Amino acid sequence: MEFATITTPAPAVPAIVEECLAKGINAVQILSAGFREAGEEGRRLEEQIARTAARGLRVVGPNCFGVYSPAGGLTILPGADLPKESGPVAFISQSGGYAIRVPHRASGWGIRFSQIVSYGNACDINECDLLEYFSQDPQTRVITGYIEGPRDGPRFFRRLKEVSQTKPVIIWKGGLSQGGARAVNSHTGSLGGEEAVWDALFRQTGAIRVNSIEELIDTTLAFLYLPEYRGRRLTVIGGGGGIGVAAADACEKVGLSVPLFPPELQKKLTAIVPPAGASTRNPVDVGSPGPRPQVLRSVLETVLTEGRVDMAIISELNMSMATPPPGSAGNPAPDARFGANVAELSRIPVEIKKRLGRPLMVVLPVEANGPEDIRVEEARRQVVNYYLGEGIPVFLTLERAVKALSNVISYYERRDALVSVNQGIPS
Amino acid sequence: MEFATITTPAPAVPAIVEECLAKGINAVQILSAGFREAGEEGRRLEEQIARTAARGLRVVGPNCFGVYSPAGGLTILPGADLPKESGPVAFISQSGGYAIRVPHRASGWGIRFSQIVSYGNACDINECDLLEYFSQDPQTRVITGYIEGPRDGPRFFRRLKEVSQTKPVIIWKGGLSQGGARAVNSHTGSLGGEEAVWDALFRQTGAIRVNSIEELIDTTLAFLYLPEYRGRRLTVIGGGGGIGVAAADACEKVGLSVPLFPPELQKKLTAIVPPAGASTRNPVDVGSPGPRPQVLRSVLETVLTEGRVDMAIISELNMSMATPPPGSAGNPAPDARFGANVAELSRIPVEIKKRLGRPLMVVLPVEANGPEDIRVEEARRQVVNYYLGEGIPVFLTLERAVKALSNVISYYERRDALVSVNQGIPS
Repeated sequence: MEFATITTPAPAVPAIVEECLAKGINAVQILSAGFREAGEEGRRLEEQIARTAARGLRVVGPNCFGVYSPAGGLTILPGADLPKESGPVAFISQSGGYAIRVPHRASGWGIRFSQIVSYGNACDINECDLLEYFSQDPQTRVITGYIEGPRDGPRFFRRLKEVSQTKPVIIWKGGLSQGGARAVNSHTGSLGGEEAVWDALFRQTGAIRVNSIEELIDTTLAFLYLPEYRGRRLTVIGGGGGIGVAAADACEKVGLSVPLFPPELQKKLTAIVPPAGASTRNPVDVGSPGPRPQVLRSVLETVLTEGRVDMAIISELNMSMATPPPGSAGNPAPDARFGANVAELSRIPVEIKKRLGRPLMVVLPVEANGPEDIRVEEARRQVVNYYLGEGIPVFLTLERAVKALSNVISYYERRDALVSVNQGIPS
Repeated sequence: MEFATITTPAPAVPAIVEECLAKGINAVQILSAGFREAGEEGRRLEEQIARTAARGLRVVGPNCFGVYSPAGGLTILPGADLPKESGPVAFISQSGGYAIRVPHRASGWGIRFSQIVSYGNACDINECDLLEYFSQDPQTRVITGYIEGPRDGPRFFRRLKEVSQTKPVIIWKGGLSQGGARAVNSHTGSLGGEEAVWDALFRQTGAIRVNSIEELIDTTLAFLYLPEYRGRRLTVIGGGGGIGVAAADACEKVGLSVPLFPPELQKKLTAIVPPAGASTRNPVDVGSPGPRPQVLRSVLETVLTEGRVDMAIISELNMSMATPPPGSAGNPAPDARFGANVAELSRIPVEIKKRLGRPLMVVLPVEANGPEDIRVEEARRQVVNYYLGEGIPVFLTLERAVKALSNVISYYERRDALVSVNQGIPS
């Protein structure tokens, strides 16, 4: 298959597309801007291209960054040299900027892409075509998208609903505010649409709505690393009472439950944690952010086998130099004041996951933000990599972890419900 | 003044406090846990201490991490060796863990503290006493707090209202969910209180509500770096249409306005930005995340002098190696593909702020999250430090920047309104 990339100024583009068609080229991507988003003259040029396309050639764009497809050796989006390795995530983006930013930011979280398509004004190939394509693509397990305004609303609705029954589709919809809708119009010449319409769309199709680049990445990570997952009861294990309080608040805000442990279980846990300054009700406070490794091991084993919870989140424990005192930066060895057992502590979640086969999540925040603390951050990132390599998803804050988890659970719950309705079975 | 720190197990504490009183010690902090939060026996011990205190000695705690006061040379909280320098922020915390985490995380953002008081069960000195103290403290400009449940609700309300008229009081209230309230009870033995009650408290007192450690730090930063500030009209300058869309959405969500620029101003801006792929309506899209420095300079000058906006936010431009391609990590020089002018570009906001005397905010996200990208992150942090040193606040995401800004504006607006009501002047 022949594929051409066109980057000339807009007025020259229609003739080049015509030439491509004449030469038997199957598809082109037009990166140039200056079409429908720029006014009447641009609209005319774009319509000319669409007419040529209809005679036998597919067009990505114009006003886009085109296609990233590592398996096909096509890894250059403008200004970015993206990873050469393929992965299970597709990203369709009406924004060229996000077509680069999303894979950049996702790369540190171990997320790799099957393909990324920045399709801009979508004069030919649009989000519906791409949804169909990725729903059939065996390499793609999770479909993600940044959408400003679909070309054909009803068709988009139907596609989204169909595809969501087999693969999670995570959509960040931009431009729902007044100013946002205006920016959409000058960006890709689309209509932004109304909040209520999009609410209904997400509810009825089973697609997953996210509201930022961070939530898109977190949710993708949760889908990749968690099994098909429906349970809303969880335990949070942290070190410090305030963190337990914040954990419970954050979970309930997104509809997850942190159920009170029964008295017999609390009694067992009380025998494990330190005698004062801890809590065993759920969330579990192991007394300090740097507990003895054996304490974390026993607590995890006990709550996962007897706690009637679906998931354990280990939140803000000192798995790396994540909470060293300022001034210790530059020293890569764990600080003795937090116990010499940091390395052993960090291995416990991996050991428990292997032994019990239960899903776990870990929260490892950036603790120190100065340039002088950079070694601390490097150590934290190494531990993040270690967990990702062992199949344990890691998040920067507990709020973000539970939002991603809730997005995953809601998807499977709604899919169950939609499938039941479609089969005429009462849900 | 004599000051003692008590860390013995709970049952031994009352006798030691009695002994301190006999020896003429003025104040003690009791770090030990095992009091009211632990049940009936602990409650009895705590009441015994309170009775001793009433006879002539002040008590911080028990079940706390005590006092951090760099000006007084008291800089050790358990497990943390905090900065020796004082600053303009007070932090009162019912959680010991947050008394350490907040200053750790804030340190990278240039925030220093006058004092931090972890007061735990508050058997004597409580949040009301501390609010009074810091309202009078000349070194403290901003008061922050993590509160689970105040001892004396009506007094807390009155104090908060009084103090908020002279200094911003930023409160993170923990434990508003069911599980959170339970965790509060086992943490500091307090009652969590209801959402509606706390909503009313914030509305009526003029205190600023935040919902996470990140928002507490962001909002503190905004108060420290922005002048008394009330304008809700702003411009966002970014590189890439999708970022403009997200910016407008984020602003309107928190009640800020990104007003459409009038045609004559759009025309002027159009002459500055690249001919295609940019937008001048507001948000302003300068065409790419790495614009020519002269473009950013002229756009900023033009919108700040003619745009009738109160603030400009410069969002996600390549001020450091913030968006280099993966694989370029380890190379501290800006990548040529983003323009060799990165260093000059990064100086523009500082130059404009000095010349025009207008407040600016900068958004510099963490772009690459892997350990192999650590040099990229180091460069980003250096640029953050540079801006902070020049009095320009920096935020990790635009969502967080505008939330902090909105918190600042709401505070001054409500203070105006409350002062008017108190003076009998219709607001």
